[in-house]
Amino acid sequence: MISIDEQIKIISKGADEIIDIEDLKAKLEKSQKEGKPLRVKLGLDPTAPDIHLGHAVVLRKIKQLQDLGHKAIIIIGDFTGMIGDPSGRSKTRPALTKEEVLENARTYQEQIFKVIDRDKTEVRFNSEWLGALDFSDVIVLASKHTVARMLEREDFKKRFEEHESIGIHEFFYPLMQGYDSVAIEADIELGGTDQRFNLLMGRTIQRDYGQESQVALMMPLLEGTDGVEKMSKSLGNYIGIYEEPNEMYGKVMSIPDELMIKYYELATDIHPDEISKIKAGLEDGSYHPRDAKMRLAREITSLYHSEEAAQKAEEQFKAVFQRGGMPDEIPTFEVPQDIISQEGVDMARLIVEAGLAPSTSQARRLISQGAIRVNGEKTDELKNPTLKDQDVVQVGKRNFIRVRL
Amino acid sequence: MISIDEQIKIISKGADEIIDIEDLKAKLEKSQKEGKPLRVKLGLDPTAPDIHLGHAVVLRKIKQLQDLGHKAIIIIGDFTGMIGDPSGRSKTRPALTKEEVLENARTYQEQIFKVIDRDKTEVRFNSEWLGALDFSDVIVLASKHTVARMLEREDFKKRFEEHESIGIHEFFYPLMQGYDSVAIEADIELGGTDQRFNLLMGRTIQRDYGQESQVALMMPLLEGTDGVEKMSKSLGNYIGIYEEPNEMYGKVMSIPDELMIKYYELATDIHPDEISKIKAGLEDGSYHPRDAKMRLAREITSLYHSEEAAQKAEEQFKAVFQRGGMPDEIPTFEVPQDIISQEGVDMARLIVEAGLAPSTSQARRLISQGAIRVNGEKTDELKNPTLKDQDVVQVGKRNFIRVRL
Repeated sequence: MISIDEQIKIISKGADEIIDIEDLKAKLEKSQKEGKPLRVKLGLDPTAPDIHLGHAVVLRKIKQLQDLGHKAIIIIGDFTGMIGDPSGRSKTRPALTKEEVLENARTYQEQIFKVIDRDKTEVRFNSEWLGALDFSDVIVLASKHTVARMLEREDFKKRFEEHESIGIHEFFYPLMQGYDSVAIEADIELGGTDQRFNLLMGRTIQRDYGQESQVALMMPLLEGTDGVEKMSKSLGNYIGIYEEPNEMYGKVMSIPDELMIKYYELATDIHPDEISKIKAGLEDGSYHPRDAKMRLAREITSLYHSEEAAQKAEEQFKAVFQRGGMPDEIPTFEVPQDIISQEGVDMARLIVEAGLAPSTSQARRLISQGAIRVNGEKTDELKNPTLKDQDVVQVGKRNFIRVRL
Repeated sequence: MISIDEQIKIISKGADEIIDIEDLKAKLEKSQKEGKPLRVKLGLDPTAPDIHLGHAVVLRKIKQLQDLGHKAIIIIGDFTGMIGDPSGRSKTRPALTKEEVLENARTYQEQIFKVIDRDKTEVRFNSEWLGALDFSDVIVLASKHTVARMLEREDFKKRFEEHESIGIHEFFYPLMQGYDSVAIEADIELGGTDQRFNLLMGRTIQRDYGQESQVALMMPLLEGTDGVEKMSKSLGNYIGIYEEPNEMYGKVMSIPDELMIKYYELATDIHPDEISKIKAGLEDGSYHPRDAKMRLAREITSLYHSEEAAQKAEEQFKAVFQRGGMPDEIPTFEVPQDIISQEGVDMARLIVEAGLAPSTSQARRLISQGAIRVNGEKTDELKNPTLKDQDVVQVGKRNFIRVRL
């Protein structure tokens, strides 16, 4: 049986804030005494996701809690999803049908179960309890909370001060999230630091309804491969959990050295004591940053693939970068006829069609920056009249295609 | 058939504000064309009332609308009444049971039908539609309205600025009142000037739900007999609609001359043209203020009693005040044994027991101010050893009792 102190050490790893640690201790003690797992809540929006390591931070923490014997309660926010934004102000929140919600939930579950343990997870839809509330219940729920307190929430505060409109219904969302905690009797709720207000609201609302308050466990946001911005698909600095082993390994190798420990803490399940050792080794120079980063890349790749796949990715990486060669396996790409003209192959469109750049404007930028090689030779031509079958086109350091013409 | 202009003249009489007059005109025209009465809404709290002329201002306006052929929809706010104040902050708003609400509604109806026409009235309880709303409906209702706009309401604004707490549920009350207008498809809503925000909210919410906006018809607050404060039972400056003819007549006679026209406008159903004539007469000196006030007192007394009763009250008033005599009929009062001691009759308690002063402290004040006469002679004795059977005790100008000892 794992001691309470050891559990707290693992739970605290990488956490930004825990409110509060005494409550957590009491809950863990009670859980151990009664042999009853803690109920760990995570709320998810029912928008179709494509999970990356940034999203996975809270999921990994849940996995660690599951490994300690606790139970995950994943709440799919279908109730609000089906309402959408009734004010019509936000186009990004269309009302979803029951079918769309279920489909999104299915996709979501497929992805989260790549991280967390299906057998120790309960998936719940909050329409189950929120849909059962009538107007009087809503009044009772709202009555314990004041307008002033709600306007303390950072985003509301900012909008209010800048005279941007806040719909009254927006005040309901934190209340609903808090009520979700009541409905499932959450012991711990996980969220990013941006969820602080809502997680604390859950503590208060549980008290309003005569329950013990949940522990709010806040995880920091993870920076992307650029080392600056929050990891995000739209910024192109993300590492998706579905990426191929070579791609995943290579992307981890591209993060700045300063971020390594943070990635160890937030993106792996390595024990905190072990992370302390790595950190100490890096600090006293006994552990080479390149080796530390290769271990990190191997650990992360193993989590989402297999140890063998991670090992292979490492060898590939070494072959390409350390020996300056090309990878063993290069995917072939059939060049579409419509991008070939008398002037030659449209290189920008080739790069986009092959999935090596998100847009032709970005592809053109890569070309002008000299990031393109054909058979190892740099080229900045926009139309290439000499490109022939079996030529290898390289974009940046790690992306290769063998063209079929 | 009454012309639109004539209707508008009658509806506008005494009104503080009409939003807006063009909408009113269009509605009246449509009503006349289609032979369909307008639906005139008045919302009432289900607290047990004791209606006075101040409350009756909106009711009289409704009666005038009914006389023009329109229909009153009285909404009993049982939904909020049954919820009370769930924050527990306000002790003045206890949650009522269904039975209490029904009992209060019954008392209320008994009183309002002394003013308005039962046959042209529909009484509705708003739990009928508000109780049927679920959480999604509430979100849709709230979504069209912003926090900033809600905080423009005078009382909210003041409390917000003074850092007094406002419960989030309090934002629902104006929304509910607005939704009531949707539910009953109100054409006109009546209220005091203090209801301005809520009446306008009704206009907006009807639009949100695809209805034509109601006309907001705001009536001013009526000052009490002191001519300064708003009429109110607790201030003792009120004229109750259940008061005896003599009392009612006498109280009207006690209002300051400056208030006469306002009382004509707000407390009688006299035609506006007639009121203009009275006003002109007072201004050019051709109509004596005393005569104008006696007519006012007669009109008001007739409304709540009969013309004969009003006539009799006038004669009585004249007898007492103009001829300096005593009224024809003086109620007798059996002096309770426990207020008689060796020192004589306790005059303060006598006055209180006879209902001529609300408290012994106030009775003592009246005695020390020389407002008490026995058989026409002033007396300031607190204990009266000479008071005997059939003596007439007079308090102030208008109140007499004949004691039985």
